[in-house]
Amino acid sequence: MKFVKNDQAAVFALGGLGEIGKNTYGVQFQDEIILIDAGIKFPEDELLGIDYVIPDYTYLVQNQDKIKGLIVTHGHEDHIGGIPYLLREINIPIYAGKLAIGLIRNKLEEHGLLRNAKLHTIQEDDIIKFRKTSVSFFRTTHSIPDAYGIVVKTPPGNIVHTGDFKFDFTPVGEPANLAKMAEIGKEGVLCLLSDSTNSEVPGFTLSEKVVGANISDIFSRVTGRIIFATFASNIYRLQQMVEAAVRYNRKVAVFGRSMESAIKLGQELGYIQAPKDTFIEANEINRLPANEVTILCTGSQGEPMAALSRIANGTHRQIQIIPGDTVVFSSSPIPGNTLSVSKTINMLYRAGAEVIHGKLNDIHTSGHGSQEEQKLMLRLMQPKYFMPIHGEYRMLVEHTKLAEMCGVNLENSFVMDNGDVLALSKDTAQVSGKIPSGSVYVDGSGIGDIGNIVLRDRRILSEEGLVIVVVSINMKEFKIAAGPDIISRGFVYMRESEDMINQAQKLVSAHLNKVMERKTTQWSEIKNEITDTIAPFLYEKTKRRPMILPIIMEV
Amino acid sequence: MKFVKNDQAAVFALGGLGEIGKNTYGVQFQDEIILIDAGIKFPEDELLGIDYVIPDYTYLVQNQDKIKGLIVTHGHEDHIGGIPYLLREINIPIYAGKLAIGLIRNKLEEHGLLRNAKLHTIQEDDIIKFRKTSVSFFRTTHSIPDAYGIVVKTPPGNIVHTGDFKFDFTPVGEPANLAKMAEIGKEGVLCLLSDSTNSEVPGFTLSEKVVGANISDIFSRVTGRIIFATFASNIYRLQQMVEAAVRYNRKVAVFGRSMESAIKLGQELGYIQAPKDTFIEANEINRLPANEVTILCTGSQGEPMAALSRIANGTHRQIQIIPGDTVVFSSSPIPGNTLSVSKTINMLYRAGAEVIHGKLNDIHTSGHGSQEEQKLMLRLMQPKYFMPIHGEYRMLVEHTKLAEMCGVNLENSFVMDNGDVLALSKDTAQVSGKIPSGSVYVDGSGIGDIGNIVLRDRRILSEEGLVIVVVSINMKEFKIAAGPDIISRGFVYMRESEDMINQAQKLVSAHLNKVMERKTTQWSEIKNEITDTIAPFLYEKTKRRPMILPIIMEV
Repeated sequence: MKFVKNDQAAVFALGGLGEIGKNTYGVQFQDEIILIDAGIKFPEDELLGIDYVIPDYTYLVQNQDKIKGLIVTHGHEDHIGGIPYLLREINIPIYAGKLAIGLIRNKLEEHGLLRNAKLHTIQEDDIIKFRKTSVSFFRTTHSIPDAYGIVVKTPPGNIVHTGDFKFDFTPVGEPANLAKMAEIGKEGVLCLLSDSTNSEVPGFTLSEKVVGANISDIFSRVTGRIIFATFASNIYRLQQMVEAAVRYNRKVAVFGRSMESAIKLGQELGYIQAPKDTFIEANEINRLPANEVTILCTGSQGEPMAALSRIANGTHRQIQIIPGDTVVFSSSPIPGNTLSVSKTINMLYRAGAEVIHGKLNDIHTSGHGSQEEQKLMLRLMQPKYFMPIHGEYRMLVEHTKLAEMCGVNLENSFVMDNGDVLALSKDTAQVSGKIPSGSVYVDGSGIGDIGNIVLRDRRILSEEGLVIVVVSINMKEFKIAAGPDIISRGFVYMRESEDMINQAQKLVSAHLNKVMERKTTQWSEIKNEITDTIAPFLYEKTKRRPMILPIIMEV
Repeated sequence: MKFVKNDQAAVFALGGLGEIGKNTYGVQFQDEIILIDAGIKFPEDELLGIDYVIPDYTYLVQNQDKIKGLIVTHGHEDHIGGIPYLLREINIPIYAGKLAIGLIRNKLEEHGLLRNAKLHTIQEDDIIKFRKTSVSFFRTTHSIPDAYGIVVKTPPGNIVHTGDFKFDFTPVGEPANLAKMAEIGKEGVLCLLSDSTNSEVPGFTLSEKVVGANISDIFSRVTGRIIFATFASNIYRLQQMVEAAVRYNRKVAVFGRSMESAIKLGQELGYIQAPKDTFIEANEINRLPANEVTILCTGSQGEPMAALSRIANGTHRQIQIIPGDTVVFSSSPIPGNTLSVSKTINMLYRAGAEVIHGKLNDIHTSGHGSQEEQKLMLRLMQPKYFMPIHGEYRMLVEHTKLAEMCGVNLENSFVMDNGDVLALSKDTAQVSGKIPSGSVYVDGSGIGDIGNIVLRDRRILSEEGLVIVVVSINMKEFKIAAGPDIISRGFVYMRESEDMINQAQKLVSAHLNKVMERKTTQWSEIKNEITDTIAPFLYEKTKRRPMILPIIMEV
């Protein structure tokens, strides 16, 4: 990084700034790079057909000899989902907490990358020492066990990355290590990178224990079967549900691949604890009375192929809704999923189920701290410089306002974009350069082979459809040998539009004959002629602008 | 309606049940049909490229001689948007309040249908008498002026349709006519059709006056320009904004076609009142100091072409964000628009604006009554039978639970689907048949020419793209005359995938030569051969399943 001085530490993000997703951060001092997280983002609607979005890893590949390791804050997809794609390029060592390592292991196995992976499980008190830098950890609370904040010690000062956090004073599992955070703050924080997800939300995030009490309350009063949907990775929630089930004498059958593997992993690591006979097989639920059955399933986001969606629309192989069933959504829809969740709820009502969902029931809580918690982090760390991370642009900006209230002047806060590099010396900080940081689209097995042209085509095809004009031309005699034929997809229902298509065909035919008379050998001229003839005609008839694809065959 | 007895009244919906949108209801007694509302629905995401959805009007067309008129409850698109499409089929008289008539008039003019339309403006005390039935009105409060509930008097009893309503005791404009509603209830309501939009929301909807006070508060403290975005049809909100502007010595410039026409119509009808020089032209804003400027604009839902979106992304011809600008979203995103609104807000932050949005600021309120208001309506009307309308399925179900609390037994409540016909006699009610009630898609100028096949094609094209294999075949000699050529759109970026495409071409070529040896004349066989050859090859290479379109030209 030629724009960072030799005595400066550089902080950058390849993902996670101006967006919630594909979190990938780096701290560099001279020839040592500490990478923090490697996540994916789920595509927004306009990325038609794209499965995931990952960052452009160019900078990391070019500087792979400098990378000391990937430190993982916790095991959510937006923090670990990119690892297989990154590891295919550079096989760096990975350090993460117990559960995250378990999840990464599963993921790498799926991708056939486990054998060569260098995985290291860390404990809170571990210190990973490199030549010039070192990494240590502090325990935080989040919606998944084994969530850590990271301290990267560099010669100009300590750089702290909070990971995703909230301050749940009555958590399930271990509480955040306030004492260690205070110590880190006292020792001195040159720059704090802090989770901005809920910077627009006043107050304090609801405790997981309150959620647990409300879940237990539902189990105490429902007399039919309970169908319980939540995020598979929220192991705490799963444990609370299991406890409620045990308390009210219910067995639990698990549906959905990710849920099954979460329960398995959670039990192996001791996060999910239940009497031996609590979990039952799918086929056993019909042998038990309704008030002894809990069905734990995936699909709380209305994902069309998940267990709950199939239960709702009646296509699940093993479970049909029966009278008395109560479905509990222990989740809230992420913004892009509002409609699909709503559809699933309506289908469940139609099938005759009672449905408990929504904020009113306090059966879900965010994994991210609200404003007061973000302020608490700022007060504990007392950073000299502040860089809000993990949030849309507006959330980053709002977070700097909170930092200002807690003693960090606005000019010491840096709202950055992915790729911006913040150069930090002991007492200066400035954005001093940029590294490559675009988005790379993963579609099927293709990584980065879908670009804006393909997406633009998909958008036009999706909204207006396609009209193909195909014609064989004898280029020696300048004569149409066959066609023009008109074929369409996604444009109009052809059988009902025969007249229009026939007219279009005649129109193109007449024009082409004229073009032939000019004895042109320029295919592009012929193609343009076809498009310019048919596009206005179809627009006039339908007020639609389909993609026009002229195909000329020379015979 | 052969399934309705001669002494029974029939109630049905062609839209509005199990959905919020395309509200279209009918009350029929013998040979008299009273139609209530004719709305559109905005398409959900999976209806790719569709502009609007309207109901199937078949039943109305077939029974047009019986239709006495279309009674319109109020002027929102989901209640009047279908009128041009309906009037093209059957030119029935239309009865509506003052503002709704104004909006319908504009709409019909755009569609070139105004000249022959039979429009009648009604007042609250009007009674429209037909031979066997009659229609009267009661004033309600809603987020648009001139909202009415409808009483259809039929021999078996009175059928009441609430329209969209809330009970705002401190409204802008006239309050709901509680006395008249109580009278109607006392006279006896055989069946109540009531707005279910907010049946999942406890309590009472916030008064418009509270919203006005909060808007005024913002105007009192902001020192830069105020850019104010809201729904153009919410004339009350516009008036409150105008009052705040006048109070704090600001002029108002209006941007966006629908906003301009709403202000014009509102002023003509006396709903928007302001000193003469309040409204200024677009070019005058630069002559005034920032603290004297209000920019009123469309785009509160993040619509990409609306004024606010163009201001946000810097493409507006006249307005750029300048330091000190405050953008007020006096609106809440409807579920399908969450992401686009969020994007607009982020762009505004990036451009340097302050943004005030969201529920926390109480600068918006629903036009629909919450549970306590729905109960108040039930208590006032004391219906014998109850039919929840205007809501998704779950909202209809929840509304029946509220009705039960207010004395309507669940077996007297009817959660119906579009097309179901409820037959009512003096003391019986039952769903006794079904009329056609599908959805008709409007795309460009096409009405109903886009069906499921076209939509399925659009979906595949949008997610996986298209691969065309085109080949000219000499059918006399059973030889390939030209090609096969492979063309793709929305599949992969061709230049970077040349190898794969070349391989695919060779593969198809080899297979086709074999097919030619069989001397088949079955085109479908040749086409299938092409698809069966190339589809698995491409899937193996890319894990994608594009639409394969084999095109054969005979020369």
